[in-house]
Amino acid sequence: MLENYNIRTDLALETRERFVSDHVEIPGVSVEETYDEEREIRTTRVVVETENGAKMMGKPVGTYLTIEAPNMAVPDEDYHREISKKLAEDIKELIPERKEEVSVLVVGLGNREVTPDALGPYVADHLHVTRHIVKEYGKYAMGKDQVYLVSAVVPGVTGQTGMETLEIVKGVVEETEPDFVVAIDALAARNSKRLNRTIQITDTGICPGSGVGNHRLALNSETLGVKVIGIGVPTVVDAVTIVNDTMENFIVALESSELLKSVGETLRSYNEAEKQELIRELIAPHLNGMYMTPKNIDDTIKRVSFTISEALNILFSEGTAS
Amino acid sequence: MLENYNIRTDLALETRERFVSDHVEIPGVSVEETYDEEREIRTTRVVVETENGAKMMGKPVGTYLTIEAPNMAVPDEDYHREISKKLAEDIKELIPERKEEVSVLVVGLGNREVTPDALGPYVADHLHVTRHIVKEYGKYAMGKDQVYLVSAVVPGVTGQTGMETLEIVKGVVEETEPDFVVAIDALAARNSKRLNRTIQITDTGICPGSGVGNHRLALNSETLGVKVIGIGVPTVVDAVTIVNDTMENFIVALESSELLKSVGETLRSYNEAEKQELIRELIAPHLNGMYMTPKNIDDTIKRVSFTISEALNILFSEGTAS
Amino acid sequence: MLENYNIRTDLALETRERFVSDHVEIPGVSVEETYDEEREIRTTRVVVETENGAKMMGKPVGTYLTIEAPNMAVPDEDYHREISKKLAEDIKELIPERKEEVSVLVVGLGNREVTPDALGPYVADHLHVTRHIVKEYGKYAMGKDQVYLVSAVVPGVTGQTGMETLEIVKGVVEETEPDFVVAIDALAARNSKRLNRTIQITDTGICPGSGVGNHRLALNSETLGVKVIGIGVPTVVDAVTIVNDTMENFIVALESSELLKSVGETLRSYNEAEKQELIRELIAPHLNGMYMTPKNIDDTIKRVSFTISEALNILFSEGTAS
Amino acid sequence: MLENYNIRTDLALETRERFVSDHVEIPGVSVEETYDEEREIRTTRVVVETENGAKMMGKPVGTYLTIEAPNMAVPDEDYHREISKKLAEDIKELIPERKEEVSVLVVGLGNREVTPDALGPYVADHLHVTRHIVKEYGKYAMGKDQVYLVSAVVPGVTGQTGMETLEIVKGVVEETEPDFVVAIDALAARNSKRLNRTIQITDTGICPGSGVGNHRLALNSETLGVKVIGIGVPTVVDAVTIVNDTMENFIVALESSELLKSVGETLRSYNEAEKQELIRELIAPHLNGMYMTPKNIDDTIKRVSFTISEALNILFSEGTAS
Repeated sequence: MLENYNIRTDLALETRERFVSDHVEIPGVSVEETYDEEREIRTTRVVVETENGAKMMGKPVGTYLTIEAPNMAVPDEDYHREISKKLAEDIKELIPERKEEVSVLVVGLGNREVTPDALGPYVADHLHVTRHIVKEYGKYAMGKDQVYLVSAVVPGVTGQTGMETLEIVKGVVEETEPDFVVAIDALAARNSKRLNRTIQITDTGICPGSGVGNHRLALNSETLGVKVIGIGVPTVVDAVTIVNDTMENFIVALESSELLKSVGETLRSYNEAEKQELIRELIAPHLNGMYMTPKNIDDTIKRVSFTISEALNILFSEGTAS
Repeated sequence: MLENYNIRTDLALETRERFVSDHVEIPGVSVEETYDEEREIRTTRVVVETENGAKMMGKPVGTYLTIEAPNMAVPDEDYHREISKKLAEDIKELIPERKEEVSVLVVGLGNREVTPDALGPYVADHLHVTRHIVKEYGKYAMGKDQVYLVSAVVPGVTGQTGMETLEIVKGVVEETEPDFVVAIDALAARNSKRLNRTIQITDTGICPGSGVGNHRLALNSETLGVKVIGIGVPTVVDAVTIVNDTMENFIVALESSELLKSVGETLRSYNEAEKQELIRELIAPHLNGMYMTPKNIDDTIKRVSFTISEALNILFSEGTAS
Repeated sequence: MLENYNIRTDLALETRERFVSDHVEIPGVSVEETYDEEREIRTTRVVVETENGAKMMGKPVGTYLTIEAPNMAVPDEDYHREISKKLAEDIKELIPERKEEVSVLVVGLGNREVTPDALGPYVADHLHVTRHIVKEYGKYAMGKDQVYLVSAVVPGVTGQTGMETLEIVKGVVEETEPDFVVAIDALAARNSKRLNRTIQITDTGICPGSGVGNHRLALNSETLGVKVIGIGVPTVVDAVTIVNDTMENFIVALESSELLKSVGETLRSYNEAEKQELIRELIAPHLNGMYMTPKNIDDTIKRVSFTISEALNILFSEGTAS
Repeated sequence: MLENYNIRTDLALETRERFVSDHVEIPGVSVEETYDEEREIRTTRVVVETENGAKMMGKPVGTYLTIEAPNMAVPDEDYHREISKKLAEDIKELIPERKEEVSVLVVGLGNREVTPDALGPYVADHLHVTRHIVKEYGKYAMGKDQVYLVSAVVPGVTGQTGMETLEIVKGVVEETEPDFVVAIDALAARNSKRLNRTIQITDTGICPGSGVGNHRLALNSETLGVKVIGIGVPTVVDAVTIVNDTMENFIVALESSELLKSVGETLRSYNEAEKQELIRELIAPHLNGMYMTPKNIDDTIKRVSFTISEALNILFSEGTAS
């Protein structure tokens, strides 16, 4: 009933699912799914190919890779290393081709003080930065013929800085001129099952989203002037989403009940305006600005952020020895 | 419809409200409300006087003071100082009578790594501890005739320590023999409107609750052998509560609709077993272990914890100068 | 003997003292000292007026205010508030004149992970940022006719970011165009007595110094294009300084001993090359890159950083109500 | 000259070195040194066998293993894993023999807020605690026939808790009854070359020492009633030690100088009282309570603490699969 109500998700995968469940074809959007049985990793590649597809999806033209690994939130060092390697390969596909020296700025978005929003800062914490070393001692200090010059910044959130995240990142990009940017952020998912076990990689940057920290301005090639790879992990579900899900489940429950079948059908027959009105009444105003997250988010966020920083460390230390 | 379903709240105030909304008198439970207009502070004193009352309330016999101050979450240093003073007075009422030297152990419960659960540790961080000074230099080092010997411990949570919180606190109490204990904890509220603007003080200690960190064993005079003052602030709402609230709002919405009035009435007429069944279907299994909290929880938790630590610092530094 | 050996200090006050102890007049440098007996605050104003004076001092032309308050490291909230007020007045003197809207970027230099170097980040943490509010709602949201638009950034250190601090700050300045910058940093002192009880304010910015984090490039009006107020607190003494001090004390001890008087005199008569050689032998190579700091630095740094952030909050919230 | 002046070191290795440099045999103290060339790890085993030996050494009867690995402070994950394995073997030697279930309490001593003193807390942070799991689900939950029940506590320092560290740990030990305790602490070294590249393991517990946090009461089998393995890493040098070293170097420099030879000899001929007097004059009173540590202590402390927590995780997860 309510699937067209504006439910927030940062995952292209979830946006597409809604169309699928409505049996709607989206022209200009291609989807490809692969499953690695041994490692239990499902990879979905959604490519938004046309402006029309972008419009329907509500996401910019570009490639969206989604890695789903149910065990990502579980403590198992070896498994996490496997995911890091897979992630490194996937990111590699989206970044600009290798030259002798490639410089990359990693941006750890989010608020270090709010546990589910600390993903970006934590990734930056464990990154091996090298730009200052290569700048000072030359690339042979790294013992390689081809090197990445890695730099990292944690811009903080507007409530702490008084500035838009974009302003800070843009200033740093203009001053240090990286070849491309990798921006990491905690996202909001539609489905609580996806929390902390899904990683989305996209070459469209970070869109103004519904994560914990709501960046109002996009970080992408248009705003920053260089390619921006966005890496996101859903760590929260918006409270409004929960309310909506409850409603949907309720309707289904009614329909399957002998007694109340007619009620469910009545509700289904509501027109759009009536539905919106009903939802508005149901959502307590105090739910705005609230999000839902698991109790063990502290452990999970540390593990997932480490998996991502390791992926970046693997990728950026590649290169034939000199 | 669903008010008897086991909705979790740590606030005595909220438990009682549910009876009131059902127009049920609870024998053995007295309630008194005062309102300080100037400071906009509402104080509710719920006294559970009999074992029968305790049974109905699901809360032990004892006194529960609840301070509600809508502006508590707002940045205003002077206002917070006012609340600290009020809080100091209220706590004073519940603690054992003054002697020349009174020793108190403050226990900061919760997980420092999870923002809405860090209340207890943050309060302990800002406490002026004095026990070691008085032990070493005598009470005149404090320039007072009567002194509190203040000590503090942050026991951590079971997932970090491998021990029950009670084991750690009990060991410390037996070794250092305080006259009483003050335990601070983040709580779960029933109503999201109460988050971060309500403080509950009770002489019944901390009960195994539904806060972020779920302590399985109570800290009270029975388990610790000394009086335990519990100070709690609701910082989260359980995800299950949100689902329940949505349902209740939905039923009300149905009843007020001309078209669907009969549906609402049908649902109201459900018997207990049917209701439980319905709820079970509605609550997605992934919601277990999830909680909801506001996006700006980092600022709020710092402010509220500082208000409480200041209250304790005011109270414990009182005494006639020597 | 060794006073011309290159001992590192970030305090203009200490540079000058060395000349005074040698009874040398420095042309182009004026000094003025005032003492507030009630509050026990000594203020020294060193003005380097000419390029010649700058050369002798090894510090750029400009004004250097030094506030010394022996009790700054002691816990006494009221006293700290007094210092914050005094500090606000002193900073006010150095900043550009008021207009209707003045924007200021506060830069918290240093490494949050190293206790004595965390001063700058801690000051930024407690700052009331307002730029985003005024930008969105206009200055009347602040209830004032004249407002400061306060923003803050914590750039991190090169080992964490791979970038020069100057690069990051310059980028942010160019993007957000503040009217002036306030940069806060932990400094190295010459004399351990000054640690954590001295604050230096200067309109010459932050020079490449000898603090814990050694910024290699200056932040000043030349490099940033806007006025830079530097606020520094000495929190460490370089290990090399300690060795030097020991030597000086030793010589004095020898001279005052009947028996060893001649030795002291012999040492004094050493020529420069001989002295340098002796020092080089005495300084163990392992002392390089080491600094000395008090054991209670965690409490002290929190208190002093709070005193500074309060000073800035007082200053930037001034203005006639609209 | 000054080697008998009371220079503080927590390393048995260093205490013994002083005797060796004086060509003094210590009866009741045996020493054995091995060197692993491939891994560049030097292991020294000092066994204090008799009370007489203990008296001369100023250290209790027991075994002191010291592992010196110059690359320990350098970032190299594989090398650190090697040290962790070596460490696990060494610790194993000192702990009580295996039974089906062995319970161990790991105590992370020190102050999390002061970088070089955060070693113990950081080790506890990365420990896999299992006691609560085995208690609840039985040892087969761990998939092993023999299991360690690992618990961990971070007691904080007296200035934060108002209690002696011993009081807290003793309480927890009496309540949870572990078979043995492992206490980790940051130490003070005599020689700055040893900082962050030396690990001392001893079965004598932690003695009241000269580390950053000075625990006044020992944690050992006498005070806690169970065996206490102490693991320490020198992370600071006391400022007084630096002064003393400078003096020693100075005397040597004088003796080797043609001109000043006689001075050196005169100083050597000083009697004890004269020497003490000289030292007292040389040590500025402000150096008391100060310590010296390297600038990059934040990275180093993280790496070394991780090496130790990995060693404990390896050791405590051993056991034949069930």
